[in-house]
Amino acid sequence: MKKASSTVEQIHTFFDPKSVAVVGASKKITKAGHVIFKNFADNKRRGIFKGELYPINPHEDYILAFKCYSSLKNVIGDIELVVIVVPAENVAQTMQEAAQKNARAAVIVSGGFGEIGNHKLEDQVKSIAEKAGIRVLGPNCLGVYDSSTGVDMLFLPETRVLTTGEEVVATPRPRSGPIAVVTQSGAFGVAVLDYMAGEQIGLSKFVSFGNKIDVEEPEILEYLLHDPQTRVILLYVESIKSGRKFMEVAREVTRYKPIVAMKSGKTEAGARAALSHTGAIAGSDRIYDSVFSQSGVIRVRDTEELLDASEALAFQPPAAGNNVAIVTAAGGPAIMAADECESRGVTIKRFSNETFQKFEGLKKEGKIPSFATNYNPLDLTGSVTSEMFELGTKILLDDPEIHGVIVFGLHHSPALQEDYVDRIANLSKTSLKPILACDIGETEMATYIRGRFDKMGVPAYSSPEDAARAMAALVHYGVYLKNNGFYDDYIEQFKRQVRT
Amino acid sequence: MKKASSTVEQIHTFFDPKSVAVVGASKKITKAGHVIFKNFADNKRRGIFKGELYPINPHEDYILAFKCYSSLKNVIGDIELVVIVVPAENVAQTMQEAAQKNARAAVIVSGGFGEIGNHKLEDQVKSIAEKAGIRVLGPNCLGVYDSSTGVDMLFLPETRVLTTGEEVVATPRPRSGPIAVVTQSGAFGVAVLDYMAGEQIGLSKFVSFGNKIDVEEPEILEYLLHDPQTRVILLYVESIKSGRKFMEVAREVTRYKPIVAMKSGKTEAGARAALSHTGAIAGSDRIYDSVFSQSGVIRVRDTEELLDASEALAFQPPAAGNNVAIVTAAGGPAIMAADECESRGVTIKRFSNETFQKFEGLKKEGKIPSFATNYNPLDLTGSVTSEMFELGTKILLDDPEIHGVIVFGLHHSPALQEDYVDRIANLSKTSLKPILACDIGETEMATYIRGRFDKMGVPAYSSPEDAARAMAALVHYGVYLKNNGFYDDYIEQFKRQVRT
Repeated sequence: MKKASSTVEQIHTFFDPKSVAVVGASKKITKAGHVIFKNFADNKRRGIFKGELYPINPHEDYILAFKCYSSLKNVIGDIELVVIVVPAENVAQTMQEAAQKNARAAVIVSGGFGEIGNHKLEDQVKSIAEKAGIRVLGPNCLGVYDSSTGVDMLFLPETRVLTTGEEVVATPRPRSGPIAVVTQSGAFGVAVLDYMAGEQIGLSKFVSFGNKIDVEEPEILEYLLHDPQTRVILLYVESIKSGRKFMEVAREVTRYKPIVAMKSGKTEAGARAALSHTGAIAGSDRIYDSVFSQSGVIRVRDTEELLDASEALAFQPPAAGNNVAIVTAAGGPAIMAADECESRGVTIKRFSNETFQKFEGLKKEGKIPSFATNYNPLDLTGSVTSEMFELGTKILLDDPEIHGVIVFGLHHSPALQEDYVDRIANLSKTSLKPILACDIGETEMATYIRGRFDKMGVPAYSSPEDAARAMAALVHYGVYLKNNGFYDDYIEQFKRQVRT
Repeated sequence: MKKASSTVEQIHTFFDPKSVAVVGASKKITKAGHVIFKNFADNKRRGIFKGELYPINPHEDYILAFKCYSSLKNVIGDIELVVIVVPAENVAQTMQEAAQKNARAAVIVSGGFGEIGNHKLEDQVKSIAEKAGIRVLGPNCLGVYDSSTGVDMLFLPETRVLTTGEEVVATPRPRSGPIAVVTQSGAFGVAVLDYMAGEQIGLSKFVSFGNKIDVEEPEILEYLLHDPQTRVILLYVESIKSGRKFMEVAREVTRYKPIVAMKSGKTEAGARAALSHTGAIAGSDRIYDSVFSQSGVIRVRDTEELLDASEALAFQPPAAGNNVAIVTAAGGPAIMAADECESRGVTIKRFSNETFQKFEGLKKEGKIPSFATNYNPLDLTGSVTSEMFELGTKILLDDPEIHGVIVFGLHHSPALQEDYVDRIANLSKTSLKPILACDIGETEMATYIRGRFDKMGVPAYSSPEDAARAMAALVHYGVYLKNNGFYDDYIEQFKRQVRT
């Protein structure tokens, strides 16, 4: 294994190149080579992309006011990164020229290799790269998107014009933020970006691998470990080629940054589909379970949980144990959350007598309803007010036996004012126990409440089960850190990065 | 057991009373008695609620321009339905007066009974009702909402004013449609309404039970069987008191109308929470599994699945078997769907040789990409067009071995025009095999595509797993109908109700 510093330096070229050539750049708006070059050109004009930029196309003199070159060879000056968007049969030739220019890295966006049985061509390209020491992403991939450096290889334009003549956002680039997306499937990656943009979840970096002839998950994970912008890594894989190396790197990464992984191809039919998708041999699902759990990777079961858990881990500390408390304005949703928590190995145990008595005291003082139930869940009933929520949550956070709190403040509760969000968020700011929120509904008040929670750093979910699953991720990660002696360092880092 | 006709007639009073008295009607906007009376008054003025309406309150002469009575006794004329919103200690007296007026039914919205340990008062009220033959919903419930008759007992106003001075929708009433909501938890019921309104899913009737001292699930289910507006029943329960009666009625109902049920309190912690919520003894979860499966009730695992499955069953026919085909523009999401289908007992088996060869033929003719994979999933790749989707889906629907199709037309696919939605929806209109769609993302194009599918009767989901779970509901219901000899009649009814 190469030294970390060398890997990081090499991979850095994909995210922040001093010079980029786009081979197959085009004026035709329907071409991938147009969209990619335009992304770079726009970002350069805006001052976001700071490197040199060269369009390569033998049939054009200028593309979008940039001088065009007929070949890489004709460019005067260095080219660190080559983005290749030409037909598969021309890729080897392009790679030869890249080698002559001493390019450090290449992203082969073009498809038509191993994924359609063209293994010979893929091997040829791989061999050229190896000889020249060029690191390669792809082929058959979407490459890299990094909002901070202006590197944007997504060949899908941000907006599309419908047949009605209306322009709508189709492939949004999310705002800048703490979550890195690392994906074997480009299409799924783009779908995740769309979800993140819609939910206003911030992205640090996006990498799509495709056929993975060179750069694979471990090197990207190692790079992201050193990326100051990334706090959580969202990973989608259909197969991992080198399990041992993955474990070694993942174990190091998860000491400092959570990795939330979704591995598909779990069932026979899924594995068959994966095989015909990227040629990946899915392998026994239990082996992946073991690889992930031994290296502290949080494995999730579906798309929604992947995003929900990543958001929770980005904004809340992991739980130092698996006892969770629920405080609620209504019984039903709290029962559902309790069910989901328990079925995920998160304990909803009866409050200690001390905590129970504190609530009894509040009842006597008339500070919470006399008919509230206070075993866990703490059900403050439909009569709940903002003050009661704050008071109840504070007592739960103060209980040393409780490691995290889920708050269900259903917005229709008549006496509940929206300032309960601020009160809960303020408690969260000074607590090192995780707090998550839930409010169900898809109309104005529900989305307003959830959005307000999210903005204040308390991720809020639209169903009790979603909130419970996100809490399970915080618990499982925290317990892993605890068991391996990493918890205290992680919490110190979390305080510095998130709570200041 | 009473005759069906008698039950239906009695329960009908809750949904379409000729006369209603609201005891505890109030002018004060913060009072539940205000909101409920105003709902009726508004709907009467709009001509939706057609019955007589009487506010009862000894301290007022008029409420919202309706003459107010000091007691039920003073009303001249019949009172079919009494809605009770007075403090618990006054409910027995009110029930006595309702008995003297020969009221047929009462909804006791007031809380303060069994749910807080006040069993004596509850028993007293129950005994008055039994002697007088008054059917009772509640106490401690939200009662009934029926948009077609204007009965609206939700004491939560539709909008709220935020501290910013802005008025937002807080407890929306969904538009009229085919799904009935029957819920033990009022708060969860309201949350479901909010979700349905946001997703533009139509509601037929809403019933919240609360403590269930008289009317329970079986009678409501029987009533909804005879309700022409209801095609699907969404049921949330924490406990069912009379399992045998429930099974008997549910089995009869599910021949004609699917019941999608969520039963919470599955785990020990959940059961404890349920006990302290409505005093419900949750019972062994396996018994519920057996009760539901024997009576054709589709049991779902969480909130989202409850709504997703209900929508699928309302708009698409059940599957006549468990072989499902997937057609997709991208590998990743299709693998996830295949995984989820298989883990729910839905088979994604390789296409028959005949179907495989049809796709091979299309490749040779250049009608689908030569590098498409056609085993199941049918992956038409990022080069997919609307025509390819239509062609591929048609071949799958024509295959007698395939019982349903899930379509993944990710909107960012460059060559895919949004008319593929119309093409798929048109195929669906003439097919008696279920079709569901999926497009991932939360920004404009994704929500536009899903909304367009939904409007055309093909429910569209935002994650592969959600689509797979909804398809599993269609498969499980269809297989139940088949195994019991009910399928053909159901399909005939579906054609008449949905496809005309």
